Amino acid sequence: MKRFSLLELAEKVGGKIVGDRDLQIEGVATLEAAGPTDLAFFTNIRYLERAAQTGAGAVLVRDGVELPGKILLVVEDPSTTLAELLELFHPVQPPEPGISADARMADDVDIGAGLTIGPFAVVESGCRLGDGARIGAGCWVGAGSQVGAGSVLMPGAVLYPGTVLGKACLIHSGVVLGGDGFGFATRSGLHRKIPQVGRVVVEDQVEIGANSTVDRGALGDTRIGAGSKIDNLVMIAHGVELGPSCLLAGQAGIAGSTRVGKGVTFAGQAGAAGHLTIGDGAVVAAKSAVFADIPEGSFVAGIPARDHREWKKMVAVEKRLPELRAELKRLGRKILRLEQGCNQED
Amino acid sequence: MKRFSLLELAEKVGGKIVGDRDLQIEGVATLEAAGPTDLAFFTNIRYLERAAQTGAGAVLVRDGVELPGKILLVVEDPSTTLAELLELFHPVQPPEPGISADARMADDVDIGAGLTIGPFAVVESGCRLGDGARIGAGCWVGAGSQVGAGSVLMPGAVLYPGTVLGKACLIHSGVVLGGDGFGFATRSGLHRKIPQVGRVVVEDQVEIGANSTVDRGALGDTRIGAGSKIDNLVMIAHGVELGPSCLLAGQAGIAGSTRVGKGVTFAGQAGAAGHLTIGDGAVVAAKSAVFADIPEGSFVAGIPARDHREWKKMVAVEKRLPELRAELKRLGRKILRLEQGCNQED
Amino acid sequence: MKRFSLLELAEKVGGKIVGDRDLQIEGVATLEAAGPTDLAFFTNIRYLERAAQTGAGAVLVRDGVELPGKILLVVEDPSTTLAELLELFHPVQPPEPGISADARMADDVDIGAGLTIGPFAVVESGCRLGDGARIGAGCWVGAGSQVGAGSVLMPGAVLYPGTVLGKACLIHSGVVLGGDGFGFATRSGLHRKIPQVGRVVVEDQVEIGANSTVDRGALGDTRIGAGSKIDNLVMIAHGVELGPSCLLAGQAGIAGSTRVGKGVTFAGQAGAAGHLTIGDGAVVAAKSAVFADIPEGSFVAGIPARDHREWKKMVAVEKRLPELRAELKRLGRKILRLEQGCNQED
Repeated sequence: MKRFSLLELAEKVGGKIVGDRDLQIEGVATLEAAGPTDLAFFTNIRYLERAAQTGAGAVLVRDGVELPGKILLVVEDPSTTLAELLELFHPVQPPEPGISADARMADDVDIGAGLTIGPFAVVESGCRLGDGARIGAGCWVGAGSQVGAGSVLMPGAVLYPGTVLGKACLIHSGVVLGGDGFGFATRSGLHRKIPQVGRVVVEDQVEIGANSTVDRGALGDTRIGAGSKIDNLVMIAHGVELGPSCLLAGQAGIAGSTRVGKGVTFAGQAGAAGHLTIGDGAVVAAKSAVFADIPEGSFVAGIPARDHREWKKMVAVEKRLPELRAELKRLGRKILRLEQGCNQED
Repeated sequence: MKRFSLLELAEKVGGKIVGDRDLQIEGVATLEAAGPTDLAFFTNIRYLERAAQTGAGAVLVRDGVELPGKILLVVEDPSTTLAELLELFHPVQPPEPGISADARMADDVDIGAGLTIGPFAVVESGCRLGDGARIGAGCWVGAGSQVGAGSVLMPGAVLYPGTVLGKACLIHSGVVLGGDGFGFATRSGLHRKIPQVGRVVVEDQVEIGANSTVDRGALGDTRIGAGSKIDNLVMIAHGVELGPSCLLAGQAGIAGSTRVGKGVTFAGQAGAAGHLTIGDGAVVAAKSAVFADIPEGSFVAGIPARDHREWKKMVAVEKRLPELRAELKRLGRKILRLEQGCNQED
Repeated sequence: MKRFSLLELAEKVGGKIVGDRDLQIEGVATLEAAGPTDLAFFTNIRYLERAAQTGAGAVLVRDGVELPGKILLVVEDPSTTLAELLELFHPVQPPEPGISADARMADDVDIGAGLTIGPFAVVESGCRLGDGARIGAGCWVGAGSQVGAGSVLMPGAVLYPGTVLGKACLIHSGVVLGGDGFGFATRSGLHRKIPQVGRVVVEDQVEIGANSTVDRGALGDTRIGAGSKIDNLVMIAHGVELGPSCLLAGQAGIAGSTRVGKGVTFAGQAGAAGHLTIGDGAVVAAKSAVFADIPEGSFVAGIPARDHREWKKMVAVEKRLPELRAELKRLGRKILRLEQGCNQED
């Protein structure tokens, strides 16, 4: 078990201590689960009551937060500190490098040093696997694909032929990269497949959550920008260009050929139609649908998505529509009476 | 082939017969497909016409339903009876227990009696597999995971390390339990991974449909309550606590740290935002989005979700918005005329 | 490398040339990526500017489109021509037929000629595989399933027992056909599984995108009509009957027992409730939810879905709801003043 004094932790992560700096900390836990040797994490004001009642030895908080009677580790950015602390208490133990005798790899695969390839994985002809790459059990890496140094395919991930994956990516189980885009030429009601001859190119440090899919381009490439993070069950259609440092939450979907700028956020179950341009830093609220271009820095919500403040106002009125209709009827009757020259209240 | 007289069936399931009790029944079928030796199933009033025209030998109905001229098996709860009858006519034949020579299991796995492990399955170090558990072809059971007695992983299911699965669960193909939660510390526009060190704990008698995903907790556990049933392509984010006996239909999604009570229903494509509390017995209509806490027993619909009756009223008015706007304009003109002292109709 | 003169291409696909017919073409590319030996594809008016600036040697356009100064290949239906050209420049090279020594196939499987079965695929007892079928690495074909001639299962696809797949189908990685439908008999708050004893039947020339799922029927079959094309992460519930030549875009979902006519389109993230009838040729807009039967030829949008034009009008007014409410209040005040006999402007 790892153990650090609060002072040691504060020095490692650059924080201030309120209270006993010699307190011994053995782990990080939720406000509810934490015990006297745990540091708990508190940033969401929703959980103030839980924070007040926590049995944690100490609480990690943002500068300016007070929790009377609690020992605090105060930092500028608790989320970053949490990441650092978890790395400290839960160091990742990558598996021993080695290529399973039960994996099947073509003879001509260009392999780096320190690879790990799990049982029943298949790596086809012409692939390149960078130093320290890890290909999980049962993965399929189609012919001519590339997996950059330090990238990890969790068990059961699939790369169709010709997929390019950058360095230090984390591709979770069930992800399918490079499946055919959804493109058909329809004539007399019959759908003829348009061959999808582009690729999927995933830049460095991208994470893609379980069972998400990114389709190959029809002609050009589908591209996922460096440092973008994609949650589970997300769909990225053919020809999409996603900028760097985007966040796409669970079950979001982006239709074909849409260009998404850098640092764009899609919340859960949000979507964008095809052939759009979504500006840098835009935020699309949960369950919303973007049906038109949106400029840099927008925060949009609704179906169709519009400015988030307008959407909130609209929703507020929408809720009261039945009253508004009743009021309209009432005014109509009043006007009628006024027109008839009688002026009594109804 | 199995064959029972209607009387035998009525005795087994506790029903009454209208008509020929000696009728021989060899199977259960839909109203349309059923022939003279089949029992058909009729509960949805939508299908009254099909019921009247069915060629079924007999029809399974709820107490109080009449179908003139048809032989009926009348029961209190046709759905439960249907389950019983299908178990009778289609007894499950579990595969012969046995561990495939093509499976790979670590030496230290704690294994129960009567296990079935399919070819190309991988069970890593430190796992525990209960009596009669079945691990399908190509499954991956990560280090230190537990699979309770009688639980079944269909081919290709994935358990990340440390996942705990209770007894008598049914996990369909493509399900991923324990993938990393979607948690990042963002600083200067860059997203740093927050290690996800919690687990997924699935209690007894849970069913999870094809390609659904349940992420491991960031700090604590993600928990699926006993007897809950989850459909396909559902997303359960990190730290969610789902109570017992919930029903989540296809493509529903629940964001991080939301607590869902017992017996809650999410219809298809519904969603809930993170950090919410959803009361026992709540029902969320299809395609709705819960953005705020909802109390016990609520029935909500819409985006954002509100009381279902209010939503229906709102939708009814919404449909007529263009008329309402026209009416508003008309009234405006009338008022103008009244103000001008002229009182003619327009 | 393949190379054709524009004249040769025009003769192959039945088009007219504007400009130099001897131009040598070596590939098809996007407007932006195309170079002097490429033919670029232009049909979407959104991309007029890109077309004007393309460096392509020639541009494939629809009859009637003009691009001053560009060499054009003019055809009646550029999408069909694109499909033809891509087949020409990117001929598919199916893998050498052969059954991997690492595949596991039951002794009694009925196999056609020219099969390809990848490593770690499992084909269970009683299956029938047609001529030229291809079963990718790690696929699972459950007992008694059928795969028609020329059909392809990409790596990791799963067919539950008894699934019937027609000819010339393309089933992408991660697809699960035949998982249990979501059917439970609920009594005293407990959910008892209703055995799902129907099948999935997929007719000829169907394509199903990565990680989509089609559940087996409860009693009868779930059916996917010939020539229908299904995108990624789509959910088809038990007992659905999908007609021929339908298009279901990414993340669409259709609930149990709904009957969908022929040539129906669901755009991305659209859904339909269960037990409905959706007429031939209907189109459901993106993110919409069909909660009632819709007739042949409908074009619907919204939640709940209604006629698309009405939806557009409704959305237009909805946007202005806060103004309408303000106007209503203003009229109310005016009426009050009129009632009080004073007639000044406010």
